[in-house]
Amino acid sequence: MTQVLGVALLGTGRMAHVYGPKINAHTGLKLEVIYNPRRSSADKVAALYGGRPTDDLDSVLSDPCVEAVIIATPTDTHVDYIEKVARAGKAIYCEKPLDQTLERVDRAMAALKINPVPFMLGFNRRFDPDNSALRNAVKNGEIGRINMLMSWSREPVPPPIEYVRVSGGYFIDSTIHDIDLLCWIAGERPVEVSAFGSCMFDPQIGAEGDLDMTMTMLKMPSGALVHINNSRACAYGFDQRLEAFGRKGMVQTLNHRDDNLVRWDNSRTVAREPLKHFFLERYDQSFYYALDEFHAAIISGRDPSSSAADGRAALAIAHACATSALEGRTISPEY
Amino acid sequence: MTQVLGVALLGTGRMAHVYGPKINAHTGLKLEVIYNPRRSSADKVAALYGGRPTDDLDSVLSDPCVEAVIIATPTDTHVDYIEKVARAGKAIYCEKPLDQTLERVDRAMAALKINPVPFMLGFNRRFDPDNSALRNAVKNGEIGRINMLMSWSREPVPPPIEYVRVSGGYFIDSTIHDIDLLCWIAGERPVEVSAFGSCMFDPQIGAEGDLDMTMTMLKMPSGALVHINNSRACAYGFDQRLEAFGRKGMVQTLNHRDDNLVRWDNSRTVAREPLKHFFLERYDQSFYYALDEFHAAIISGRDPSSSAADGRAALAIAHACATSALEGRTISPEY
Amino acid sequence: MTQVLGVALLGTGRMAHVYGPKINAHTGLKLEVIYNPRRSSADKVAALYGGRPTDDLDSVLSDPCVEAVIIATPTDTHVDYIEKVARAGKAIYCEKPLDQTLERVDRAMAALKINPVPFMLGFNRRFDPDNSALRNAVKNGEIGRINMLMSWSREPVPPPIEYVRVSGGYFIDSTIHDIDLLCWIAGERPVEVSAFGSCMFDPQIGAEGDLDMTMTMLKMPSGALVHINNSRACAYGFDQRLEAFGRKGMVQTLNHRDDNLVRWDNSRTVAREPLKHFFLERYDQSFYYALDEFHAAIISGRDPSSSAADGRAALAIAHACATSALEGRTISPEY
Amino acid sequence: MTQVLGVALLGTGRMAHVYGPKINAHTGLKLEVIYNPRRSSADKVAALYGGRPTDDLDSVLSDPCVEAVIIATPTDTHVDYIEKVARAGKAIYCEKPLDQTLERVDRAMAALKINPVPFMLGFNRRFDPDNSALRNAVKNGEIGRINMLMSWSREPVPPPIEYVRVSGGYFIDSTIHDIDLLCWIAGERPVEVSAFGSCMFDPQIGAEGDLDMTMTMLKMPSGALVHINNSRACAYGFDQRLEAFGRKGMVQTLNHRDDNLVRWDNSRTVAREPLKHFFLERYDQSFYYALDEFHAAIISGRDPSSSAADGRAALAIAHACATSALEGRTISPEY
Repeated sequence: MTQVLGVALLGTGRMAHVYGPKINAHTGLKLEVIYNPRRSSADKVAALYGGRPTDDLDSVLSDPCVEAVIIATPTDTHVDYIEKVARAGKAIYCEKPLDQTLERVDRAMAALKINPVPFMLGFNRRFDPDNSALRNAVKNGEIGRINMLMSWSREPVPPPIEYVRVSGGYFIDSTIHDIDLLCWIAGERPVEVSAFGSCMFDPQIGAEGDLDMTMTMLKMPSGALVHINNSRACAYGFDQRLEAFGRKGMVQTLNHRDDNLVRWDNSRTVAREPLKHFFLERYDQSFYYALDEFHAAIISGRDPSSSAADGRAALAIAHACATSALEGRTISPEY
Repeated sequence: MTQVLGVALLGTGRMAHVYGPKINAHTGLKLEVIYNPRRSSADKVAALYGGRPTDDLDSVLSDPCVEAVIIATPTDTHVDYIEKVARAGKAIYCEKPLDQTLERVDRAMAALKINPVPFMLGFNRRFDPDNSALRNAVKNGEIGRINMLMSWSREPVPPPIEYVRVSGGYFIDSTIHDIDLLCWIAGERPVEVSAFGSCMFDPQIGAEGDLDMTMTMLKMPSGALVHINNSRACAYGFDQRLEAFGRKGMVQTLNHRDDNLVRWDNSRTVAREPLKHFFLERYDQSFYYALDEFHAAIISGRDPSSSAADGRAALAIAHACATSALEGRTISPEY
Repeated sequence: MTQVLGVALLGTGRMAHVYGPKINAHTGLKLEVIYNPRRSSADKVAALYGGRPTDDLDSVLSDPCVEAVIIATPTDTHVDYIEKVARAGKAIYCEKPLDQTLERVDRAMAALKINPVPFMLGFNRRFDPDNSALRNAVKNGEIGRINMLMSWSREPVPPPIEYVRVSGGYFIDSTIHDIDLLCWIAGERPVEVSAFGSCMFDPQIGAEGDLDMTMTMLKMPSGALVHINNSRACAYGFDQRLEAFGRKGMVQTLNHRDDNLVRWDNSRTVAREPLKHFFLERYDQSFYYALDEFHAAIISGRDPSSSAADGRAALAIAHACATSALEGRTISPEY
Repeated sequence: MTQVLGVALLGTGRMAHVYGPKINAHTGLKLEVIYNPRRSSADKVAALYGGRPTDDLDSVLSDPCVEAVIIATPTDTHVDYIEKVARAGKAIYCEKPLDQTLERVDRAMAALKINPVPFMLGFNRRFDPDNSALRNAVKNGEIGRINMLMSWSREPVPPPIEYVRVSGGYFIDSTIHDIDLLCWIAGERPVEVSAFGSCMFDPQIGAEGDLDMTMTMLKMPSGALVHINNSRACAYGFDQRLEAFGRKGMVQTLNHRDDNLVRWDNSRTVAREPLKHFFLERYDQSFYYALDEFHAAIISGRDPSSSAADGRAALAIAHACATSALEGRTISPEY
């Protein structure tokens, strides 16, 4: 099952530095091409991770060595690339989100219907070992059916205001990850959402009309209730927790630690380090496992487990949350 | 400050067995009278904890030894007793809730306005050492202003269906405790509430039109967001947790344990006992401290810290939550 | 089984303030007499806890209301009082240790042989709920036979040097508690001991020829190995831990906490308060349960579970430890 | 500083599979040769990790591409290989222990004196991130001077009896790792040792005259006391802990976990998985960091931090422990 796939990596930003080393570490993937419309950027990334640098997309799409394309370009270009790569008949791994608008997501899905190439959306948190351990515990019946599900995602510091401006808003930018993760764990999608938000940490974010702190509730068709806890700031680091509660018990995931050192002194006992890292460190392994799922699905001829439809649903729910917070009412997402 | 107050205890049910020993343990309180309209019940409780048993309310109200009255009768009788005791000019400690309806609560408050006797509502969770340690940490500025506040209250097993029928519904019966506690910690009352509920544990509860599992969100005037997590069933015992989050950090209260034993074997490590106890065990100390506050306030001539107005506000919020869950919309409580 | 025993309390020092309230809280014990050769001291303690104050020992010993005597006088007077009280035919609860010398302990045991009154030595740590929970877990077979057993007892601050001078040395004064507790848990007494000691915290203690930090090993007849970890100073409070290890697993007791608050900030996470208290606070409950065992044994006509022979054995082992540390060799205690 | 060193790997057993991938992962090391006197074994390992397979040691020693040699052969061959490789003038990384006998260790040290090539002994536990974090905390003065130091090393299951027979005894085979680690953390070597041992888990080990459970005490020149806790069996996995205690506080390292999942149900709460892994998994990273130290030392022309003299000292102490346990007396190691 370790048949080797030739891979083109589109985009040379932060995520290229995540995917580059992981492609190289994977025995089933071979980095053939690095593409960026600006050739010098492609050169730099290729110098680090290998692959042929290019600014010529057509040559990538016609390259017989390239069997799969990883789209790690700016979000608003994802749909255009999906259309072109699908037309070229190559497998696609697209960094999340598909797009910020449902209209463009639908365009991508239409393109994939016409050219049904293997497609995977990079919802990497599903592939985090702790998150999947929790989901497996649930699937093994350890807690019975999920009755309540909770997720905390508190980021260490607010992003630059330039980022906030183009982020699509906090629900579309961040809550969407919790939404996808929790729907995947629960095995269902909400029929109703209600969200509250405030701007308590960074007034600049409020000045842009965005929120930096939200609480979201989802109600599932089964009756299960979901809470999502998001903050753009967190004094003690990147706080990532899950809690699933059922008739038979509860499973939780705790935060990761850089070390296992415990301190006792005259001011504090059993103390641990702050959670200093952010998502690239916390979820580092998950990107590898996401690529591994992409590879395994293509090799075995099945659909990757994280689909475009999942991305569309998460986006629809995130939009419903944003509307709920804005208009102060419960919303039923439209799928 | 240990001036001794003569106390009459009205009611001989479960709470009489909580308050009886605590009155006796308190050097500033003397149990003078045990009252129940059924004399034999009064006799039994008096045999255990002392005090003169009686079924004659008038004799209690005219007894010069009785300076304070503890109302621990069925909820729907609280207001009637408050009116009578206030008219008799004696201090009142009333077991929560004041009543299930705002109309009758208003009647009690009117009576207290006409006869302004010292009045304390028994919101005992405020007097739990862990809860007050958390509030003190917040007041000492350890986390900065509260931005998020969360409360879990999951009960070990659903109550008998007869209890559910007269409970006023899950929000009025249980969530109200979290509401009061969180408003007290936050120092403010919500401007908006949104609540979701389901019946997932005990279908009998659903058949009565009630819920056995809820998630509630409160939005405070400051922008602070609050989550309340309630369940009528919990496999691992009585789960009681708080979490307060601010710019400078987070404080949490963990669950209590009967012992400090930790187990390691070939199936589980660092394992602790289930949380077997329910509220009488978990909050046992808090009832003593509540009586102590009542005593201290009367002796020093100040108002007890847990007022009838607090009880009215909590009830108004709980009603708003119930309406929100029923009608699927965000509600602004009316105070 | 709540037959009430009349009790005389000999001694009015620190331990009188421990036993006084606990005698009063116990429904089977009645504090009849407080004795101290200095009458004014007896008066003061009697004013707090009740009982008839006296400086006349003979009147105590001939008082028909006094059925049991609690000896809480200075250690070097224990044996003399035991001889007198035994001759008077009254039950004895003697604060530990019996004495610092084996010779005088043997005198006490001889007196108890001649006048075989009920006798209990106050090894209170056996009656601590955590310690007995650990022993019960072991007896229930949770870990199989004990193979290793460890105890930490680190005191918050060194005692005054005047106390050190008459303490009999660190092993006799402190390690003896761990020795008794561990032999009781293991159900056997060591055949060999080896101990190392240093003076690292308080040079005054070293100047007196004593140690302020020791490690002790015991080898049991079964082959089980025991480690005892003692320190006269501990920055984070009174550190009291146990660990029992067997073929099937491990049980530990963790330290007690004053509250269940957990703190997260930018310097530390999951941090708890220091362990501020010392033995009177940490083992407060155990004194009550020790008196309860004393009462229960007398009422039911059986021997109390903590005997003079246990006290003699613990002292013999502690002496062997002291010799081992001094002479740098392994010692076999003589029982 | 990433000058690339050509490396020959001697030995193709279990440790070859540890070092092979780590050499390949290190940008400063290049695996040139795999040597085993049995050519077919060398072929197999070379097929997995690269390098030229050979059974001709002379060709390795004269190969100009080989600048450093990793000796991962059976323990009793280490000294012979050290002599030969030192004579050939190549840097040496030798898997621990140097040898089981002090006589042969001295022969190796003599050879290194005559041919002073860079030499590093693979005491990998020093390079474990948790262990070095604890040492750094101590060096940063977090606890003041070390007064007490403790180490637990309990292995999941006893080794095959064939292994036990040639292991040199439990102290030489296992305790030696704790000894080196603790001396390295403490910055000093013991002046006295005392050890107790038993055979409680596997009677076969006792039948061979060996122990499967030991407690060891070391006394340091500074007065610091050390406890080492070893067991050949552990129901809950590979238990590895450290505790350093000083005037200002305590630092501990906790065990590693495969995941961060926590379970709550009606039999156990806050429960984690057993510690399933053994040393190859637990200390996996440390082997990489050990090779990195080897590389960094050679490149910068300094001595590697883990010397032959360290290995000799640890062996001398382990022998003293074995003698102490056997003869029941305190021993002063001879260095």
